Amino acid sequence: DISLGLVGSEMCIRDRLMGTVIQLKKQINNSYADLKNSVDDKLILVEEKINSRLASKVELVQKMTKYHLKTGGKRLRALLTLQCAKICEYQKGLRDVNLAACVELIHAATLMHDDVIDSADIRRGKKTLNTIWGNHSSILVGDYLLSKCFEMMVEDGNLELLKLLATTSSEIAQGEVLQLQHNKEIDILEETYLNIISSKTASLFAAATKVGAIIAEKDLKYKNALEFYGKNLGLTFQIADDTLDYNSELKLFGKNIGNDFYEGKVTLPIILLYQKVDKFEKEKLKSFFEKDIREKQDLEHVLVLIKKNNIINECYKKAEHYINLASNSLSVFEESEEKNILKNLTSFSIERNF
Amino acid sequence: DISLGLVGSEMCIRDRLMGTVIQLKKQINNSYADLKNSVDDKLILVEEKINSRLASKVELVQKMTKYHLKTGGKRLRALLTLQCAKICEYQKGLRDVNLAACVELIHAATLMHDDVIDSADIRRGKKTLNTIWGNHSSILVGDYLLSKCFEMMVEDGNLELLKLLATTSSEIAQGEVLQLQHNKEIDILEETYLNIISSKTASLFAAATKVGAIIAEKDLKYKNALEFYGKNLGLTFQIADDTLDYNSELKLFGKNIGNDFYEGKVTLPIILLYQKVDKFEKEKLKSFFEKDIREKQDLEHVLVLIKKNNIINECYKKAEHYINLASNSLSVFEESEEKNILKNLTSFSIERNF
Repeated sequence: DISLGLVGSEMCIRDRLMGTVIQLKKQINNSYADLKNSVDDKLILVEEKINSRLASKVELVQKMTKYHLKTGGKRLRALLTLQCAKICEYQKGLRDVNLAACVELIHAATLMHDDVIDSADIRRGKKTLNTIWGNHSSILVGDYLLSKCFEMMVEDGNLELLKLLATTSSEIAQGEVLQLQHNKEIDILEETYLNIISSKTASLFAAATKVGAIIAEKDLKYKNALEFYGKNLGLTFQIADDTLDYNSELKLFGKNIGNDFYEGKVTLPIILLYQKVDKFEKEKLKSFFEKDIREKQDLEHVLVLIKKNNIINECYKKAEHYINLASNSLSVFEESEEKNILKNLTSFSIERNF
Repeated sequence: DISLGLVGSEMCIRDRLMGTVIQLKKQINNSYADLKNSVDDKLILVEEKINSRLASKVELVQKMTKYHLKTGGKRLRALLTLQCAKICEYQKGLRDVNLAACVELIHAATLMHDDVIDSADIRRGKKTLNTIWGNHSSILVGDYLLSKCFEMMVEDGNLELLKLLATTSSEIAQGEVLQLQHNKEIDILEETYLNIISSKTASLFAAATKVGAIIAEKDLKYKNALEFYGKNLGLTFQIADDTLDYNSELKLFGKNIGNDFYEGKVTLPIILLYQKVDKFEKEKLKSFFEKDIREKQDLEHVLVLIKKNNIINECYKKAEHYINLASNSLSVFEESEEKNILKNLTSFSIERNF
């Protein structure tokens, strides 16, 4: 049912939104394609590096890491490291490749444990490792990825980088625990939500981008600029992700929505909705999140409320705040093709829906 | 039932074994006490270091790490690092303390994930973290411990050490996966078993001891000597542990046995037993490990077979092989009180039952 109970004038709004979504989707794909084209030769080396370094004498480790890498993903974090090294005119050697691989591995290790925790069956259209090989193997192979990543970082040998990436890794783990700690907490503070996504998502984006300036031995000003760019891009990215999960328009594109809802994660759309609705609906929302299992009809109810209260737009407005910060962080760099690629990514971030 | 179906002359053997166990237990406690006394002042600093560095702004992380550290354990790996630094005459600074803390944290992170995988309720007489706070938190806090440990390693700044400990960490994860891969495999090769325990246990012992020589800037000869000492001590330690789990004598001391059996882990006593018994018993053993759940009466059957085939003694003979290697590794060091402490530990390792 694509109408979601909308009638008359609301249908018109839906049609207009639809148009916007399609338009943005094109723009997103373009900005991602530009980024990928810009550093594609190096991305191939990153893939090779990861493949060769993850080789293990243990058959099951070998199988699982190969499968995990084949399911791919956009390698956005690795691309960011490569592009940021490029904008900083890093040239000598292949440290950018090695470190982009490290950044991507930290992400991969996190995903593997996330999937266990969320009992996820499917990621990027393919069965998750935990579905095929069980939770236990996934926990251990996640540990393997993280340790291998530290081995590769050590090969780089730069202590500033080692410190940055090790700190980021523990920041991510703390963010994930904080999220778990506030699971199903309907009246979680918006500030706490921001702390969670800042730790679990934005910190790795910030590290990925800052790495580029560090290996190019740029001044603190540039290091900070890229760190802030990455941080705010990451915040935008996560807010957009959390918002898309309640954007019923996306059903039209065959995307599953409501995953966070079913898992009991209270994210920005729910936080803003809960503030807006009356006492009766507040109680109802609360009861949904107090249950062990949330039903499809509960989600439908929430989606109608979200539509009625214009929550999606409100979330995007919050995301815009961080996009602007990300975009402005680039002001210390001269105008260039490379800079434009990073600038255009902000639109990728806000409406990515694949 | 302490007689376990033994009669007549067998009872006499049991009584003699009992005496040996009690005697060894005293000896063990003494050699551990000597080690602890030798570096007790530094161990206190290790505990302080761990406590202060694990502090987290996330309440749940804070609670869980505090609880985990309180449940303690013998801190054997940390003590080994401290004592090996001492035998190498390391003096300047507190790098031994920092690195002993790192080694102990790698161990702690592994335990946390092990308990999730083994669905362990109790460790060292206390409820496990996963029992109190759930598997999900334990997975994430384990990740936090490992990342924090890398942060602390980076503070030391020595790349040889960083490489050693990062490699050890991925070695442990691979060993754990290899163990899982061969779970319930009754005809697992003894060589494969040795590979598993070498990776999952002995590698961290080897790193813990080698660290002492590295920070004291000793020659390769001494580094290798302590590495081999640690590796073989670790192998002995794990074989003894696996053997104790089928040593019905220990019931008399109130120790739980059969944990590995119930979890379907095929360890040395089962491997040796399976080789010795006839076709009929082979089938029976196989059927036990093919089941989803093994019963108490299955364990009793296995314990009788182990007794009848003198498997415990055979296991100890294998352990002795590694003890001797460990002990001989120390030959490059001059005779001293410090050296004796390390030498005496081999007896601790073979019959520790607490």
